[in-house]
Amino acid sequence: MTDQLVIEKVTQAIEILQEMQVDAWLTFVRETPASGDPVLPLIYGHDLTWQSALILTRQGERIVILGHFEAETAQRTGAYPVVIPYHQSIQPALLETLDRLQPGQIAVNYSANDVLADGLSHGMYLILQNLLDETPWSTRLISAEKIIAALRSRKTPAEVTRIQKAVDTALQIYDQTFDYAAPGMCEQEIARFMHDKLDAYGVEPAWEVNSCPAVNAGPDSPVGHSGPTGIVLQAGHILHFDFGVKQDDYCSDIQRVMYFMKPGETRAPEPVQHGFDTVVHAIQAAAQVMKPGVLGKDVDAVARKVIVQAGYPEYMYATGHHLGRLAHDGAGVLGPEWDRYGDAPRYPLESGQVYTIEPGLVVPGYGYIGIEEDVIVTEAGAKFLGRPQTEIILK
Amino acid sequence: MTDQLVIEKVTQAIEILQEMQVDAWLTFVRETPASGDPVLPLIYGHDLTWQSALILTRQGERIVILGHFEAETAQRTGAYPVVIPYHQSIQPALLETLDRLQPGQIAVNYSANDVLADGLSHGMYLILQNLLDETPWSTRLISAEKIIAALRSRKTPAEVTRIQKAVDTALQIYDQTFDYAAPGMCEQEIARFMHDKLDAYGVEPAWEVNSCPAVNAGPDSPVGHSGPTGIVLQAGHILHFDFGVKQDDYCSDIQRVMYFMKPGETRAPEPVQHGFDTVVHAIQAAAQVMKPGVLGKDVDAVARKVIVQAGYPEYMYATGHHLGRLAHDGAGVLGPEWDRYGDAPRYPLESGQVYTIEPGLVVPGYGYIGIEEDVIVTEAGAKFLGRPQTEIILK
Repeated sequence: MTDQLVIEKVTQAIEILQEMQVDAWLTFVRETPASGDPVLPLIYGHDLTWQSALILTRQGERIVILGHFEAETAQRTGAYPVVIPYHQSIQPALLETLDRLQPGQIAVNYSANDVLADGLSHGMYLILQNLLDETPWSTRLISAEKIIAALRSRKTPAEVTRIQKAVDTALQIYDQTFDYAAPGMCEQEIARFMHDKLDAYGVEPAWEVNSCPAVNAGPDSPVGHSGPTGIVLQAGHILHFDFGVKQDDYCSDIQRVMYFMKPGETRAPEPVQHGFDTVVHAIQAAAQVMKPGVLGKDVDAVARKVIVQAGYPEYMYATGHHLGRLAHDGAGVLGPEWDRYGDAPRYPLESGQVYTIEPGLVVPGYGYIGIEEDVIVTEAGAKFLGRPQTEIILK
Repeated sequence: MTDQLVIEKVTQAIEILQEMQVDAWLTFVRETPASGDPVLPLIYGHDLTWQSALILTRQGERIVILGHFEAETAQRTGAYPVVIPYHQSIQPALLETLDRLQPGQIAVNYSANDVLADGLSHGMYLILQNLLDETPWSTRLISAEKIIAALRSRKTPAEVTRIQKAVDTALQIYDQTFDYAAPGMCEQEIARFMHDKLDAYGVEPAWEVNSCPAVNAGPDSPVGHSGPTGIVLQAGHILHFDFGVKQDDYCSDIQRVMYFMKPGETRAPEPVQHGFDTVVHAIQAAAQVMKPGVLGKDVDAVARKVIVQAGYPEYMYATGHHLGRLAHDGAGVLGPEWDRYGDAPRYPLESGQVYTIEPGLVVPGYGYIGIEEDVIVTEAGAKFLGRPQTEIILK
């Protein structure tokens, strides 16, 4: 299964090199259990010990040069027809290979902008420069950031299958949690229930366990970075969750909202229902406009406008982000053109990208309403991965 | 607990700067959940999101400059009296701080030799050069590899406590495994039992789960990188294990040996007992000579000589390695002066270092005998962490 995914990603990488007109892409790593390159799981799927070079070219060549004892593992991936093992130094095989390929540019994994494209350490950069010293190749190194951004964000079928599973599992755990949660429990108690379910399903939290899930009971619970507190859920509270699972290395990231009725109530109070409907409407409006070619900032603007026009303050974060191996994956963002997002809001959507959509608002006196759905961009528009929440869960 | 360890390591880092006469050490990171610096858990113990600078100086200053929303976490470590939060750019605070400190050298985390001291990515190096552009500091960057090697390898009391716990747990799991293992079981079955025990103790394997434990039954089992096989344990086999646990982020790494008697046997056959005694003798001889100032290669030579003089072929690996956060931790090695070990065998032993000692040999027709003990170097010599194996376990 891992190898099918690696084969798909390596094939996709070559298409990206052709599209971007880059001759060769070199991933240069060593001792990856101690210090890995975030792109390695995508294009190789195993650790590498000695200095190793993964070379993909616009002409479709797929070459790995590595320590002899790892050659069999490389062959078994099925993704690299040319495996060149070495015993002493990587230099002869590396220089012979580049001499044969004659690349005009060699993209390597450094980036000032994108941490996920910045897997080449400075020590390894110095080693590479030393290996290439007095060859033409030392002056032909360029940043691979655009290649890696495209590769991470365009999900292949095997990747989508995995994300779908992570979404399905998260929604199952949510259903059990909705049954479980009751007034009198504190946020931490509800989080513990969800952690036990993660164990039962044999999956991991999609981000740091202390804040996955986030659980917010009522108006006094701090929303944001911090984890569940001892605040006790009461009738009249909104209960908000932010939760996702990592399953087979891929993540889901989903927010849900419940309301706990007071004696005599048969539905959510009007301000809660109005807030809920507004968030649902914002998500649907954003999903409606998502298709290949649209810029992230324009999707953001649609959702943001729904919230603001309904009379709520603007939320101070992006409407959505890429989802994949990491809960916050890839380079572009469905966000406003704020300084802190740099270029990311101006990336166009592409078919195969998976995003979250997650507007939110506060209902004073009741709590925080945030709903988050995971969608895939297709030629026909956005498709929800998992049933979206369109009714507030009453209890 | 984490913070006590961080406080100890930061204090130790300042002593190392004084000893090495380096004015300042700068750890420069961002978005560490996606791409961390291996030194960060030692000197900070949390993730950092925006571009962040941890600055330690020979004068004893301990400064962190970081995104405002993480300032409280930095303060809570108790390790950094000066916490400088920023909202827009790290540059003003970074330049003001350097201007005040006037360091003659600034050590940063890159290394061609040591992957554990090479946590600065090339993209982050370019960002740093850009931040320091047209200041005197841009030309004063040096490698922090010696600082980091010393910091990783000299264990503080809190670190030793954790390693001791990891040793204790591994030895408890070993005892249960010795009771469990019986002829007719295959290697994989025995490994599964040990994996279940890892779960029961709530600890992780000290290295890749597929080869932790390594289990070798009899003479036909491949010893080395590969994991347990379907080979069935029989009477007349040596059963060899290589196993360790990671507990509270610190590792143990221990090898043990059993012999399964044939009908009529009451002890191990002479060649097995002789091999076993030789390995025990080699370990004891190595431990005897371990004290501060002795070079790793000289410890290696003592153990190696015992094996060779007893008539066995020389083992083709180092006698021992550092143990800590990783099963293979730190920079020096108890190894011979072979090319592949570079300078590592010429590092002197220091008080507080924790090493494995693990000579081995093959007893033809019976299997592999390797015993591995974990020891700490003290001023009074090496001290075993956990009871060493001195008798072969018969069953």
